[in-house]
Amino acid sequence: MKLYLAGPDVFLPNAVEVGNAKRQLCRQYGFVGLFPLDNELTAAKAGRLSKTIFAGNIAMLNEADAVIANLTPFRGVSADVGTVFEVGYGFARGKKVYGYSNVRTGFIERVQELVSGALERGADARLYAADGLAVEDFDHFDNLMIAEALLQNGESIVLPATAVGDTWRDLQTFERCLRTIQARAPAGSPITAAR
Amino acid sequence: MKLYLAGPDVFLPNAVEVGNAKRQLCRQYGFVGLFPLDNELTAAKAGRLSKTIFAGNIAMLNEADAVIANLTPFRGVSADVGTVFEVGYGFARGKKVYGYSNVRTGFIERVQELVSGALERGADARLYAADGLAVEDFDHFDNLMIAEALLQNGESIVLPATAVGDTWRDLQTFERCLRTIQARAPAGSPITAAR
Repeated sequence: MKLYLAGPDVFLPNAVEVGNAKRQLCRQYGFVGLFPLDNELTAAKAGRLSKTIFAGNIAMLNEADAVIANLTPFRGVSADVGTVFEVGYGFARGKKVYGYSNVRTGFIERVQELVSGALERGADARLYAADGLAVEDFDHFDNLMIAEALLQNGESIVLPATAVGDTWRDLQTFERCLRTIQARAPAGSPITAAR
Repeated sequence: MKLYLAGPDVFLPNAVEVGNAKRQLCRQYGFVGLFPLDNELTAAKAGRLSKTIFAGNIAMLNEADAVIANLTPFRGVSADVGTVFEVGYGFARGKKVYGYSNVRTGFIERVQELVSGALERGADARLYAADGLAVEDFDHFDNLMIAEALLQNGESIVLPATAVGDTWRDLQTFERCLRTIQARAPAGSPITAAR
Protein backbone atom coordinates (compact mmCIF):
# COMPACT_ATOMS: atom_id res chain seq x y z
CA MET A 1 0.00 0.00 0.00
CA LYS A 2 1.34 3.41 -1.01
CA LEU A 3 0.94 6.31 1.40
CA TYR A 4 1.18 9.93 0.25
CA LEU A 5 3.07 11.76 3.02
CA ALA A 6 1.25 15.12 3.17
CA GLY A 7 2.40 17.82 5.56
CA PRO A 8 4.27 21.06 6.10
CA ASP A 9 7.36 18.91 6.65
CA VAL A 10 8.44 20.02 3.16
CA PHE A 11 9.08 23.48 4.64
CA LEU A 12 11.74 22.19 7.06
CA PRO A 13 15.38 23.03 6.27
CA ASN A 14 16.12 19.29 6.64
CA ALA A 15 12.99 18.22 4.77
CA VAL A 16 14.87 15.59 2.75
CA GLU A 17 16.14 13.96 5.96
CA VAL A 18 12.68 14.03 7.58
CA GLY A 19 11.15 12.62 4.38
CA ASN A 20 13.67 9.80 4.36
CA ALA A 21 12.96 9.03 8.03
CA LYS A 22 9.22 8.92 7.32
CA ARG A 23 9.73 6.65 4.33
CA GLN A 24 11.92 4.36 6.43
CA LEU A 25 9.17 4.10 9.07
CA CYS A 26 6.64 3.36 6.31
CA ARG A 27 8.82 0.47 5.14
CA GLN A 28 8.96 -0.91 8.70
CA TYR A 29 5.17 -1.11 8.69
CA GLY A 30 5.00 -2.63 5.22
CA PHE A 31 4.04 0.57 3.38
CA VAL A 32 5.62 2.58 0.59
CA GLY A 33 5.84 6.26 1.54
CA LEU A 34 5.61 8.88 -1.22
CA PHE A 35 7.14 12.20 -0.11
CA PRO A 36 6.27 15.37 -2.09
CA LEU A 37 9.80 16.76 -2.00
CA ASP A 38 10.93 14.03 -4.36
CA ASN A 39 9.14 16.01 -7.03
CA GLU A 40 10.52 19.31 -5.87
CA LEU A 41 14.13 18.26 -6.22
CA THR A 42 13.62 17.18 -9.81
CA ALA A 43 11.45 20.19 -10.52
CA ALA A 44 14.15 22.59 -9.39
CA LYS A 45 15.73 22.06 -12.78
CA ALA A 46 12.55 22.99 -14.59
CA GLY A 47 11.54 26.53 -15.41
CA ARG A 48 8.07 26.77 -13.92
CA LEU A 49 8.87 25.40 -10.46
CA SER A 50 5.50 26.01 -8.79
CA LYS A 51 3.51 24.41 -11.60
CA THR A 52 5.90 21.47 -11.77
CA ILE A 53 5.65 20.83 -8.02
CA PHE A 54 1.85 20.97 -8.27
CA ALA A 55 1.74 18.52 -11.17
CA GLY A 56 4.18 16.22 -9.38
CA ASN A 57 2.18 16.22 -6.16
CA ILE A 58 -1.07 15.54 -8.02
CA ALA A 59 0.53 12.64 -9.90
CA MET A 60 1.87 11.23 -6.62
CA LEU A 61 -1.54 11.60 -4.95
CA ASN A 62 -3.15 9.74 -7.85
CA GLU A 63 -0.59 6.96 -7.44
CA ALA A 64 -1.14 6.65 -3.67
CA ASP A 65 -3.69 4.33 -2.03
CA ALA A 66 -4.05 6.53 1.03
CA VAL A 67 -2.97 9.87 2.45
CA ILE A 68 -1.30 10.26 5.84
CA ALA A 69 -1.40 13.96 6.70
CA ASN A 70 0.59 15.96 9.22
CA LEU A 71 -2.26 18.17 10.46
CA THR A 72 -0.24 19.95 13.15
CA PRO A 73 -1.54 23.56 13.31
CA PHE A 74 0.66 25.67 11.06
CA ARG A 75 0.89 29.49 11.18
CA GLY A 76 -2.63 29.88 12.47
CA VAL A 77 -5.44 27.99 14.14
CA SER A 78 -5.58 25.15 11.63
CA ALA A 79 -3.51 22.74 9.57
CA ASP A 80 -1.33 23.77 6.62
CA VAL A 81 -3.63 24.58 3.68
CA GLY A 82 -1.43 22.79 1.14
CA THR A 83 -1.85 19.64 3.21
CA VAL A 84 -5.59 20.20 3.56
CA PHE A 85 -5.95 20.67 -0.20
CA GLU A 86 -4.29 17.26 -0.60
CA VAL A 87 -6.58 15.69 2.03
CA GLY A 88 -9.63 17.00 0.13
CA TYR A 89 -8.16 15.91 -3.20
CA GLY A 90 -7.30 12.44 -1.93
CA PHE A 91 -10.70 11.98 -0.31
CA ALA A 92 -12.43 12.97 -3.56
CA ARG A 93 -10.36 10.38 -5.40
CA GLY A 94 -11.51 7.65 -3.04
CA LYS A 95 -8.23 7.37 -1.11
CA LYS A 96 -8.43 6.71 2.59
CA VAL A 97 -7.20 9.73 4.52
CA TYR A 98 -5.49 9.52 7.90
CA GLY A 99 -3.98 12.29 9.96
CA TYR A 100 -2.01 13.20 13.04
CA SER A 101 -0.91 16.30 14.90
CA ASN A 102 2.13 16.81 17.11
CA VAL A 103 0.27 19.53 19.02
CA ARG A 104 -2.45 18.44 21.45
CA THR A 105 -4.08 21.82 22.17
CA GLY A 106 -7.79 21.68 21.27
CA PHE A 107 -9.48 23.67 18.51
CA ILE A 108 -11.42 26.12 20.66
CA GLU A 109 -8.38 26.81 22.83
CA ARG A 110 -6.33 27.49 19.69
CA VAL A 111 -8.95 29.96 18.42
CA GLN A 112 -8.83 31.74 21.78
CA GLU A 113 -5.04 31.93 21.63
CA LEU A 114 -5.06 33.53 18.17
CA VAL A 115 -8.19 35.69 18.47
CA SER A 116 -7.83 37.47 21.77
CA GLY A 117 -11.02 38.14 23.71
CA ALA A 118 -13.68 35.90 25.22
CA LEU A 119 -15.84 33.43 23.32
CA GLU A 120 -19.56 34.06 23.49
CA ARG A 121 -22.64 32.00 22.77
CA GLY A 122 -24.75 33.70 20.09
CA ALA A 123 -28.54 33.99 19.95
CA ASP A 124 -28.37 31.20 17.33
CA ALA A 125 -26.72 28.95 19.97
CA ARG A 126 -23.43 28.96 18.07
CA LEU A 127 -20.14 29.86 19.76
CA TYR A 128 -18.52 33.10 18.54
CA ALA A 129 -14.94 34.34 18.81
CA ALA A 130 -14.06 38.02 19.32
CA ASP A 131 -13.55 38.34 15.54
CA GLY A 132 -17.33 38.07 15.20
CA LEU A 133 -17.24 34.71 13.40
CA ALA A 134 -18.53 31.40 14.74
CA VAL A 135 -16.26 28.70 16.12
CA GLU A 136 -17.19 25.11 15.32
CA ASP A 137 -18.13 23.35 18.53
CA PHE A 138 -18.18 19.68 17.50
CA ASP A 139 -15.30 18.49 19.69
CA HIS A 140 -13.19 18.00 16.54
CA PHE A 141 -9.49 18.81 16.41
CA ASP A 142 -9.94 21.04 13.35
CA ASN A 143 -12.61 22.04 10.79
CA LEU A 144 -15.34 19.44 10.38
CA MET A 145 -14.56 18.83 6.69
CA ILE A 146 -11.15 17.46 7.72
CA ALA A 147 -12.44 15.65 10.80
CA GLU A 148 -15.30 13.90 9.02
CA ALA A 149 -13.14 12.89 6.05
CA LEU A 150 -10.83 11.11 8.52
CA LEU A 151 -13.77 9.61 10.42
CA GLN A 152 -14.98 7.91 7.22
CA ASN A 153 -12.22 5.38 7.98
CA GLY A 154 -13.45 4.99 11.54
CA GLU A 155 -10.41 6.83 12.90
CA SER A 156 -10.03 10.27 14.45
CA ILE A 157 -6.86 12.28 14.14
CA VAL A 158 -3.96 10.70 16.07
CA LEU A 159 -2.61 12.97 18.84
CA PRO A 160 0.44 12.56 21.10
CA ALA A 161 -0.24 11.18 24.59
CA THR A 162 1.99 13.86 26.11
CA ALA A 163 3.53 17.09 24.80
CA VAL A 164 6.03 16.50 22.00
CA GLY A 165 9.54 17.98 22.27
CA ASP A 166 10.22 18.95 18.68
CA THR A 167 6.88 19.72 17.02
CA TRP A 168 8.20 19.54 13.47
CA ARG A 169 10.66 16.67 13.72
CA ASP A 170 9.33 14.18 16.28
CA LEU A 171 7.94 11.15 14.43
CA GLN A 172 6.34 9.21 17.30
CA THR A 173 2.82 10.39 16.48
CA PHE A 174 3.42 9.72 12.80
CA GLU A 175 4.49 6.19 13.73
CA ARG A 176 1.38 5.66 15.88
CA CYS A 177 -0.66 6.77 12.90
CA LEU A 178 1.11 4.16 10.74
CA ARG A 179 0.22 1.49 13.30
CA THR A 180 -3.41 2.60 13.14
CA ILE A 181 -3.42 2.29 9.36
CA GLN A 182 -1.77 -1.12 9.61
CA ALA A 183 -4.42 -2.33 12.06
CA ARG A 184 -7.15 -1.15 9.66
CA ALA A 185 -5.66 -2.91 6.64
CA PRO A 186 -7.71 -5.96 5.71
CA ALA A 187 -6.08 -9.33 6.40
CA GLY A 188 -4.31 -10.79 3.37
CA SER A 189 -3.88 -7.33 1.85
CA PRO A 190 -0.56 -6.39 0.20
CA ILE A 191 0.42 -4.76 3.49
CA THR A 192 0.48 -8.05 5.35
CA ALA A 193 2.12 -9.75 2.41
CA ALA A 194 4.97 -7.25 2.41
CA ARG A 195 5.94 -7.83 6.04
CA MET B 1 -23.97 26.35 -14.42
CA LYS B 2 -24.07 25.58 -10.70
CA LEU B 3 -21.48 27.21 -8.45
CA TYR B 4 -20.64 25.83 -5.01
CA LEU B 5 -20.19 28.88 -2.75
CA ALA B 6 -17.27 27.81 -0.54
CA GLY B 7 -16.03 30.10 2.23
CA PRO B 8 -15.93 30.95 5.91
CA ASP B 9 -19.06 33.03 5.25
CA VAL B 10 -20.96 30.20 6.98
CA PHE B 11 -19.38 31.34 10.26
CA LEU B 12 -21.00 34.80 10.08
CA PRO B 13 -23.90 35.50 12.46
CA ASN B 14 -25.91 36.62 9.40
CA ALA B 15 -24.66 33.78 7.22
CA VAL B 16 -28.13 33.09 5.80
CA GLU B 17 -28.43 36.70 4.66
CA VAL B 18 -24.95 36.70 3.11
CA GLY B 19 -25.68 33.37 1.42
CA ASN B 20 -28.91 34.77 -0.03
CA ALA B 21 -27.08 37.88 -1.30
CA LYS B 22 -24.45 35.68 -2.96
CA ARG B 23 -27.10 33.50 -4.56
CA GLN B 24 -28.90 36.59 -5.83
CA LEU B 25 -25.67 37.84 -7.44
CA CYS B 26 -25.15 34.41 -9.01
CA ARG B 27 -28.60 34.62 -10.57
CA GLN B 28 -27.77 38.06 -12.00
CA TYR B 29 -24.83 36.48 -13.84
CA GLY B 30 -26.83 33.48 -15.01
CA PHE B 31 -25.52 31.02 -12.42
CA VAL B 32 -27.14 28.93 -9.72
CA GLY B 33 -25.35 29.39 -6.39
CA LEU B 34 -25.25 26.48 -3.93
CA PHE B 35 -24.62 27.70 -0.37
CA PRO B 36 -23.45 25.15 2.24
CA LEU B 37 -25.66 26.54 5.00
CA ASP B 38 -28.72 25.24 3.21
CA ASN B 39 -27.62 21.84 4.40
CA GLU B 40 -26.81 23.02 7.87
CA LEU B 41 -30.30 24.35 8.55
CA THR B 42 -31.89 21.04 7.64
CA ALA B 43 -29.18 19.13 9.42
CA ALA B 44 -29.85 20.97 12.66
CA LYS B 45 -32.77 18.66 13.15
CA ALA B 46 -30.63 15.58 12.74
CA GLY B 47 -28.71 13.98 15.56
CA ARG B 48 -25.18 13.83 14.15
CA LEU B 49 -24.92 17.44 13.02
CA SER B 50 -21.25 17.47 12.00
CA LYS B 51 -21.54 14.29 9.91
CA THR B 52 -24.75 15.52 8.30
CA ILE B 53 -23.21 18.87 7.33
CA PHE B 54 -20.22 17.04 5.84
CA ALA B 55 -22.41 14.69 3.80
CA GLY B 56 -24.57 17.62 2.65
CA ASN B 57 -21.56 19.68 1.56
CA ILE B 58 -20.06 16.73 -0.32
CA ALA B 59 -23.38 16.07 -2.10
CA MET B 60 -23.60 19.76 -3.02
CA LEU B 61 -20.00 19.79 -4.31
CA ASN B 62 -20.75 16.75 -6.45
CA GLU B 63 -23.78 18.55 -7.88
CA ALA B 64 -21.86 21.75 -8.67
CA ASP B 65 -20.10 22.44 -11.98
CA ALA B 66 -17.57 24.77 -10.39
CA VAL B 67 -16.40 26.07 -7.01
CA ILE B 68 -16.11 29.77 -6.19
CA ALA B 69 -14.11 30.02 -2.98
CA ASN B 70 -13.78 32.88 -0.52
CA LEU B 71 -10.04 32.51 0.15
CA THR B 72 -9.74 35.56 2.43
CA PRO B 73 -7.13 34.67 5.11
CA PHE B 74 -8.98 33.32 8.14
CA ARG B 75 -7.50 33.03 11.64
CA GLY B 76 -3.96 32.68 10.39
CA VAL B 77 -1.80 33.24 7.35
CA SER B 78 -3.96 31.28 4.92
CA ALA B 79 -7.53 30.61 3.80
CA ASP B 80 -10.09 28.74 5.89
CA VAL B 81 -9.19 25.04 5.84
CA GLY B 82 -12.78 23.89 5.36
CA THR B 83 -12.89 25.98 2.20
CA VAL B 84 -9.50 24.66 1.05
CA PHE B 85 -10.64 21.06 1.61
CA GLU B 86 -13.55 21.84 -0.71
CA VAL B 87 -11.27 23.44 -3.30
CA GLY B 88 -9.11 20.29 -3.29
CA TYR B 89 -12.16 18.05 -3.41
CA GLY B 90 -13.77 19.99 -6.25
CA PHE B 91 -10.54 20.09 -8.25
CA ALA B 92 -10.14 16.32 -7.88
CA ARG B 93 -13.68 15.84 -9.17
CA GLY B 94 -12.88 17.84 -12.31
CA LYS B 95 -14.79 20.98 -11.28
CA LYS B 96 -13.32 24.31 -12.23
CA VAL B 97 -12.20 26.19 -9.13
CA TYR B 98 -12.19 29.97 -8.82
CA GLY B 99 -11.36 32.09 -5.82
CA TYR B 100 -11.22 35.57 -4.39
CA SER B 101 -9.99 37.31 -1.25
CA ASN B 102 -11.25 40.50 0.34
CA VAL B 103 -7.80 41.09 1.84
CA ARG B 104 -5.03 42.28 -0.48
CA THR B 105 -2.01 41.80 1.80
CA GLY B 106 0.50 39.47 0.14
CA PHE B 107 1.49 36.02 1.39
CA ILE B 108 5.00 36.83 2.60
CA GLU B 109 3.81 39.97 4.38
CA ARG B 110 1.10 37.91 6.12
CA VAL B 111 3.67 35.36 7.28
CA GLN B 112 5.78 38.19 8.68
CA GLU B 113 2.77 39.63 10.51
CA LEU B 114 1.96 36.31 12.19
CA VAL B 115 5.48 34.99 12.76
CA SER B 116 7.39 37.87 14.30
CA GLY B 117 11.06 38.19 13.36
CA ALA B 118 12.89 38.72 10.10
CA LEU B 119 12.75 36.43 7.09
CA GLU B 120 16.06 34.95 6.03
CA ARG B 121 17.34 33.29 2.89
CA GLY B 122 18.61 29.78 3.71
CA ALA B 123 21.68 28.02 2.34
CA ASP B 124 19.25 26.10 0.10
CA ALA B 125 18.12 29.45 -1.42
CA ARG B 126 14.67 29.11 0.15
CA LEU B 127 13.15 31.89 2.26
CA TYR B 128 12.70 31.05 5.97
CA ALA B 129 10.47 32.63 8.63
CA ALA B 130 11.52 32.99 12.27
CA ASP B 131 9.62 29.77 13.06
CA GLY B 132 12.37 27.90 11.19
CA LEU B 133 10.13 26.78 8.33
CA ALA B 134 10.34 27.85 4.72
CA VAL B 135 7.99 30.39 3.17
CA GLU B 136 6.88 29.74 -0.40
CA ASP B 137 8.29 32.46 -2.63
CA PHE B 138 6.34 31.97 -5.86
CA ASP B 139 4.49 35.30 -5.87
CA HIS B 140 1.24 33.41 -5.16
CA PHE B 141 -1.43 34.76 -2.82
CA ASP B 142 -1.46 31.52 -0.79
CA ASN B 143 -0.02 27.99 -0.85
CA LEU B 144 0.90 26.79 -4.34
CA MET B 145 -1.57 23.89 -4.29
CA ILE B 146 -4.42 26.41 -4.11
CA ALA B 147 -2.81 28.88 -6.53
CA GLU B 148 -2.03 26.30 -9.20
CA ALA B 149 -5.47 24.67 -8.96
CA LEU B 150 -6.99 28.07 -9.75
CA LEU B 151 -4.47 28.74 -12.51
CA GLN B 152 -5.58 25.58 -14.31
CA ASN B 153 -8.52 27.75 -15.46
CA GLY B 154 -6.17 30.47 -16.60
CA GLU B 155 -7.24 32.74 -13.74
CA SER B 156 -5.43 33.85 -10.60
CA ILE B 157 -7.25 34.66 -7.39
CA VAL B 158 -9.40 37.80 -7.70
CA LEU B 159 -8.34 40.57 -5.29
CA PRO B 160 -9.95 43.93 -4.52
CA ALA B 161 -8.47 46.95 -6.30
CA THR B 162 -8.47 48.91 -3.04
CA ALA B 163 -8.93 47.98 0.62
CA VAL B 164 -12.38 46.57 1.39
CA GLY B 165 -14.43 48.09 4.21
CA ASP B 166 -16.15 45.02 5.64
CA THR B 167 -13.87 42.05 5.02
CA TRP B 168 -16.53 39.43 5.68
CA ARG B 169 -19.59 41.05 4.15
CA ASP B 170 -18.47 43.10 1.15
CA LEU B 171 -19.43 41.23 -2.04
CA GLN B 172 -17.73 43.41 -4.68
CA THR B 173 -14.76 41.04 -5.08
CA PHE B 174 -17.11 38.06 -5.15
CA GLU B 175 -19.04 39.80 -7.94
CA ARG B 176 -15.86 40.51 -9.91
CA CYS B 177 -15.05 36.82 -9.59
CA LEU B 178 -18.49 35.96 -11.00
CA ARG B 179 -17.80 38.23 -13.96
CA THR B 180 -14.49 36.41 -14.53
CA ILE B 181 -16.26 33.06 -14.54
CA GLN B 182 -18.90 34.40 -16.91
CA ALA B 183 -16.24 35.65 -19.32
CA ARG B 184 -14.62 32.18 -19.26
CA ALA B 185 -17.86 30.32 -19.98
CA PRO B 186 -17.94 28.99 -23.52
CA ALA B 187 -20.34 30.75 -25.90
CA GLY B 188 -23.68 29.01 -26.25
CA SER B 189 -23.28 27.41 -22.83
CA PRO B 190 -26.26 27.24 -20.45
CA ILE B 191 -24.89 30.40 -18.82
CA THR B 192 -25.53 32.50 -21.90
CA ALA B 193 -28.85 30.79 -22.49
CA ALA B 194 -30.02 31.64 -18.98
CA ARG B 195 -29.46 35.38 -19.35
